[in-house]
Amino acid sequence: MHDGIIDLKKDQTPEPGSALHRVSPAVVKRYDRTGLVAEKTEWVITERPVTLYVNGRELVTLLCAGHHLDELAAGFLYAEGFLGALHELERLEVDQESGSVEVWVSGDLSLAGRMWEKRAVTSGCGKGSLFYYSLDALLSKPVESSLKVTAVQVLDRVEELNRLSETYRRTHGVHNTVLATPDEVLLFRDDIGRHNAVDMIVGHCFLRGIPLADKLLITTGRLTSELLIKLAKVGMPFVVSRNTATTLAIKLADSLGITLIGYARGGRFVAYAGQDRIL
Amino acid sequence: MHDGIIDLKKDQTPEPGSALHRVSPAVVKRYDRTGLVAEKTEWVITERPVTLYVNGRELVTLLCAGHHLDELAAGFLYAEGFLGALHELERLEVDQESGSVEVWVSGDLSLAGRMWEKRAVTSGCGKGSLFYYSLDALLSKPVESSLKVTAVQVLDRVEELNRLSETYRRTHGVHNTVLATPDEVLLFRDDIGRHNAVDMIVGHCFLRGIPLADKLLITTGRLTSELLIKLAKVGMPFVVSRNTATTLAIKLADSLGITLIGYARGGRFVAYAGQDRIL
Repeated sequence: MHDGIIDLKKDQTPEPGSALHRVSPAVVKRYDRTGLVAEKTEWVITERPVTLYVNGRELVTLLCAGHHLDELAAGFLYAEGFLGALHELERLEVDQESGSVEVWVSGDLSLAGRMWEKRAVTSGCGKGSLFYYSLDALLSKPVESSLKVTAVQVLDRVEELNRLSETYRRTHGVHNTVLATPDEVLLFRDDIGRHNAVDMIVGHCFLRGIPLADKLLITTGRLTSELLIKLAKVGMPFVVSRNTATTLAIKLADSLGITLIGYARGGRFVAYAGQDRIL
Repeated sequence: MHDGIIDLKKDQTPEPGSALHRVSPAVVKRYDRTGLVAEKTEWVITERPVTLYVNGRELVTLLCAGHHLDELAAGFLYAEGFLGALHELERLEVDQESGSVEVWVSGDLSLAGRMWEKRAVTSGCGKGSLFYYSLDALLSKPVESSLKVTAVQVLDRVEELNRLSETYRRTHGVHNTVLATPDEVLLFRDDIGRHNAVDMIVGHCFLRGIPLADKLLITTGRLTSELLIKLAKVGMPFVVSRNTATTLAIKLADSLGITLIGYARGGRFVAYAGQDRIL
């Protein structure tokens, strides 16, 4: 394990009943063409609202599985521009029971605040007006990285993600994401929202000063524009999914200097952009 | 076909190259363990930003596949409380090329506007503060419907959704949603965002005065809290997914009087809530 990286095994098996436990039992009725056939208890993925406060002001309520809230908050605020560097983080307090995270940050929040006000939610889970602001700023500074990865390394790391995901097959309700070097998976996170899982990984590394420019991010979620924008903001150079990409995500990966790989399954993958990093 | 319901066949096959066409060709490189094996053209799902203006003011930018923008806009504004009834819709103009929809509505927008300001985006694609406001209001008036559906009818309609979805298997990039009566599928919509597909169906019915209280909504997307809140707002009594539900979605369905069905595949399904509507 790399310095500062949480042990994977510990992360995969949270204490049943603990606040970190991601699933709850639900009594459901099962039907087939003959009608009601059984009443049984099924594991259902936990969803809970968690509210983020920045310098005493309510900023946002995230709907998430409710675990690793320190990483989730730090990653979200870093990607949104409320946190620029670790030294700007004065205090971060998680109240697991009430589902709130209070964060105190130094430095000038006026720009992040103004952009936040301009931001509009979208039912496509994308950014609103901010989308364009970020884009202009981002396109001026594409992601820089000398990372090179072989096709075999990509496929081996994807297989590791699949093995880790096994633990969560019983709920089918999560997106799984890992951070990896070409040679090993470093960190696994899952959540009901694919953005939350990415925020946790970004936050984990932000809190420990772990660089992202020499790492791969591998996810089970689809590759859409808002994910690419988030990853460009934090300098992630190499993004892999078992799933597909959209036209806009491919355009952004091209412009932002991000290697974009999709359909990584069954020993094959397609590269949409940044093929120069694939050996 | 019911009165006012668009012909399914026509909807499934938009003119290639037309603004309604949902996929674009992308040149990708395919790799396996031996390295680069092929350069080929693949169909990728279209993603584009579409900006909504209400009474001349920019409200939100949606990231979507870019089709049926009139339905998308009307459904979004209806579910968000900017439109209460059809007579309040004065004008709706779609500019397919620039990707914008201008909507003029009568009536007092102050409440919807205030709640909109309070709203916060979440990386889990959920609602922010508004989440709670809506909830308080919603819980006071659960969905009313005398709809009864047999298990066979549920499974037959799900099979129809699966057949309609075949058309989009080549991109893997969309969520599919249908509106149905117990006896037939009425309307099919797909989009990169599961919320967009639902908004289109809600908007289609809003624009034509088609009631929802006697219909089923069947989707390929996961059943999360924000979807349940949206469907409760528009009075949808019966919701089916091929996928799973979250703990919070089940709680909401219970409180809001919505029949919630998941894992509808392989001739079986589980009912999480509202089993009294299943015969």
